[in-house]
Amino acid sequence: MTDTRTTPPIIPEESGETPKPVVIPVDCREEVANISVEEFAHPADAAEHIQNLTLEKQVCMMQHLAAEDAAEALAEMEDRVQTDILENLDPEVAARILGEMSPDDAADVLSELDADHRDQLLRYVEAEDAGDAEEIRTLLAFDEDTAGGIMNTEIIILNHNLTADQAIMHIRREMEDKEIPYYAYIVDDKLRLAGVLSLRDLLLCRPGSVLKNELSDQSLISVLFDVDREEVAHTLARYDFMALPVVDYEGRLLGVVTYDDIIDIIHDEASEDMLGMVGAGQDETVDTPWLESVKVRLPWLLVNMFNSAASAFVVYMFEESIATMAILAVLMPIVANQAGNTGQQALAVMIRQLAVERFDRKKSWIAVLREAKIGLLSGLIIGIVVMFAVFGFTQNLRLAQVVSLALALDMVLGALAGASIPLILKELGRDPAQASSIFLTTLTDGAGFFIFLGLATVMLL
Amino acid sequence: MTDTRTTPPIIPEESGETPKPVVIPVDCREEVANISVEEFAHPADAAEHIQNLTLEKQVCMMQHLAAEDAAEALAEMEDRVQTDILENLDPEVAARILGEMSPDDAADVLSELDADHRDQLLRYVEAEDAGDAEEIRTLLAFDEDTAGGIMNTEIIILNHNLTADQAIMHIRREMEDKEIPYYAYIVDDKLRLAGVLSLRDLLLCRPGSVLKNELSDQSLISVLFDVDREEVAHTLARYDFMALPVVDYEGRLLGVVTYDDIIDIIHDEASEDMLGMVGAGQDETVDTPWLESVKVRLPWLLVNMFNSAASAFVVYMFEESIATMAILAVLMPIVANQAGNTGQQALAVMIRQLAVERFDRKKSWIAVLREAKIGLLSGLIIGIVVMFAVFGFTQNLRLAQVVSLALALDMVLGALAGASIPLILKELGRDPAQASSIFLTTLTDGAGFFIFLGLATVMLL
Repeated sequence: MTDTRTTPPIIPEESGETPKPVVIPVDCREEVANISVEEFAHPADAAEHIQNLTLEKQVCMMQHLAAEDAAEALAEMEDRVQTDILENLDPEVAARILGEMSPDDAADVLSELDADHRDQLLRYVEAEDAGDAEEIRTLLAFDEDTAGGIMNTEIIILNHNLTADQAIMHIRREMEDKEIPYYAYIVDDKLRLAGVLSLRDLLLCRPGSVLKNELSDQSLISVLFDVDREEVAHTLARYDFMALPVVDYEGRLLGVVTYDDIIDIIHDEASEDMLGMVGAGQDETVDTPWLESVKVRLPWLLVNMFNSAASAFVVYMFEESIATMAILAVLMPIVANQAGNTGQQALAVMIRQLAVERFDRKKSWIAVLREAKIGLLSGLIIGIVVMFAVFGFTQNLRLAQVVSLALALDMVLGALAGASIPLILKELGRDPAQASSIFLTTLTDGAGFFIFLGLATVMLL
Repeated sequence: MTDTRTTPPIIPEESGETPKPVVIPVDCREEVANISVEEFAHPADAAEHIQNLTLEKQVCMMQHLAAEDAAEALAEMEDRVQTDILENLDPEVAARILGEMSPDDAADVLSELDADHRDQLLRYVEAEDAGDAEEIRTLLAFDEDTAGGIMNTEIIILNHNLTADQAIMHIRREMEDKEIPYYAYIVDDKLRLAGVLSLRDLLLCRPGSVLKNELSDQSLISVLFDVDREEVAHTLARYDFMALPVVDYEGRLLGVVTYDDIIDIIHDEASEDMLGMVGAGQDETVDTPWLESVKVRLPWLLVNMFNSAASAFVVYMFEESIATMAILAVLMPIVANQAGNTGQQALAVMIRQLAVERFDRKKSWIAVLREAKIGLLSGLIIGIVVMFAVFGFTQNLRLAQVVSLALALDMVLGALAGASIPLILKELGRDPAQASSIFLTTLTDGAGFFIFLGLATVMLL
């Protein structure tokens, strides 16, 4: 039928907006002066300011700012800008900035680069500080979408045999470098996580008491490094923790995931669901180059086209009926539309359910039943309203009955489908939102046309 | 036309699932024993366990648990369960539990009750501890959707004339009761917020140095009490703060909003958008009683019905053309569907943009242009594909041209509408997501049918 091979040549392989490797020297002294007088309350503000400059000025600024300031600002920028800057920056300067970043931020930034460029920069980082490079490499080895991929490693670790006052002294010495200085992680001699104490707990301990005795009645919640980041977010949100320790299969402490990363993940996951539902790119934003968006969305539009061709085929089967009674074509969209909307409501509730709570199979299928009941009652009510309206308009009682019956049936089906599609996708191990809206519409359209035109053909013609 | 007055009798005013005020005495000794042996790692787990019991057992448990445990568990439960329990619990016991909760949690729980019941319980709380009741009343006066409505008041406040070691002593004394013991808020003699110091900052200060001298180069980020909670979430997420101070118009410190509340808000806002888009209740979950869901969704389904009646009317204008050429009715849904999907993609990107970033008018309208470009190129590509497919199927070149032209035009329109609708709603001061999907479909359906059937009538008949 449709030959998708006709389309690719129109979309260039490269988006055309990737930066040129050669940067024209520009003067950014004025901008650097602005940054250095601490005009900005927070690195996030400096990052936003720099992001709005041209690439040339961005690179110039990163070159001239103190490595520490540059590192803080770079960490706050959008992925695309980070990549552009690193690709155009002198590698030695880039390595110095990466060295100043926390290892997890550095790994995040580097993971966006292509492998060659990443390795090159890591060699420069290594030349400055072999330990930093090692730590970044370790973090890069974890899957980005897992606890390991989002964890921080700059944490305070204390042996369980220390006393409380030794611990506080240790923390005073170390805390300046650490990202989360509010918790200390207590490990045994094999580096297995034994407990967590907050700075507040430590201050409330008797100075001489040994840490492991302070952990006795603690229940320890941690996650494995290979747990999906959405699951990590659920756990952290459920327990209102500020940080959640990440361990390996032997229970050894690897790092922690902190609340600020979770906030980003929750935003990301919500975007992924809403965008995925309609077949847009899951990480698309208004800053995505438009050709890239076309490339991602087009396949789904083609899927949608095949799907609507299927619905159209249903109508085609009843072409005779429509030729005899064109009013059917008028009422057809009402049936499909109402069922579509009903299904979308069920779909939205289910997708959010899966996003906010841990998956519970039984509870989920009970929710499908709930949607069916909602669809049935709404279908009856809307069906009655439509019956009166169509009768008032056409004076044809049989037609009014057929429309309202088809509408009610299709609405129940829409509710059932809307509620089930995410669960079925989930059970198949797929993303519950992906293209769910497209599949739903196909079903409500196809079934709606079939029921309505079928009933009409049998009962009216 | 449609008489909505026919519908209300079907939906009872009360959902029918609200609890009866008289609770049958049940035995919950077994369950209480399970809770008291600290079977649960965290109050959230205990809350989940209790939530799954019958209302009678829930009430019995709250009655028999230690007030402190009951308070912790109650704070973690869902709104509906909290309300059910409080409405059926002996008011003295309820007051004792509320007194053990942090004032902001207690205010949250009470805000769900009806005014009479709330006042009654507050009088009981007052009898136990007038200060608690006063604080809860103050918090209840703030709008739930603002910084004031979500802030915590159990914070450490230090006068700016204290020395660092006095401050640490003070914190040691007070911290046990405070929810966020990691920051101390420094105020001047008029209680105006002067700065924030973390426990870590304090430990790093010279012991004798006066706090106000430690604040000199600090830039202070706070929010006004009447700022919308979504804006508060943006600010906290932007700066990766753990807590954000809330002040009044005179700059006096009122409380702080913490990261854990923000996580809930981000979840809530994402749900509101996705549910609002399709006209479901913005706080609906799978636990909402189904009749209540029908009540909330039905008005939007009726709006959708009027809208699809409008699209149907467009088709009706071309009834003659369809009677002459029934294939038009077959192809009609393809045009509307593709444009609808294109619009949904634009809509999703824009709604997420507004959810994740602060609103920037210029940037937003540039994004509309971006969507228009995406719609145009996708429209051309899909148009060409459809032209070949329709020609292959019907051997009618003119028809194929008309379909593909209508499709491309409607897709551009869909992209423009999908991108603009949230912005227009926002500019009008409305929720950008509310019913946006319903309006979009109306537009793409109506315009799609009009363009396609209009072109067909002019060019083919």
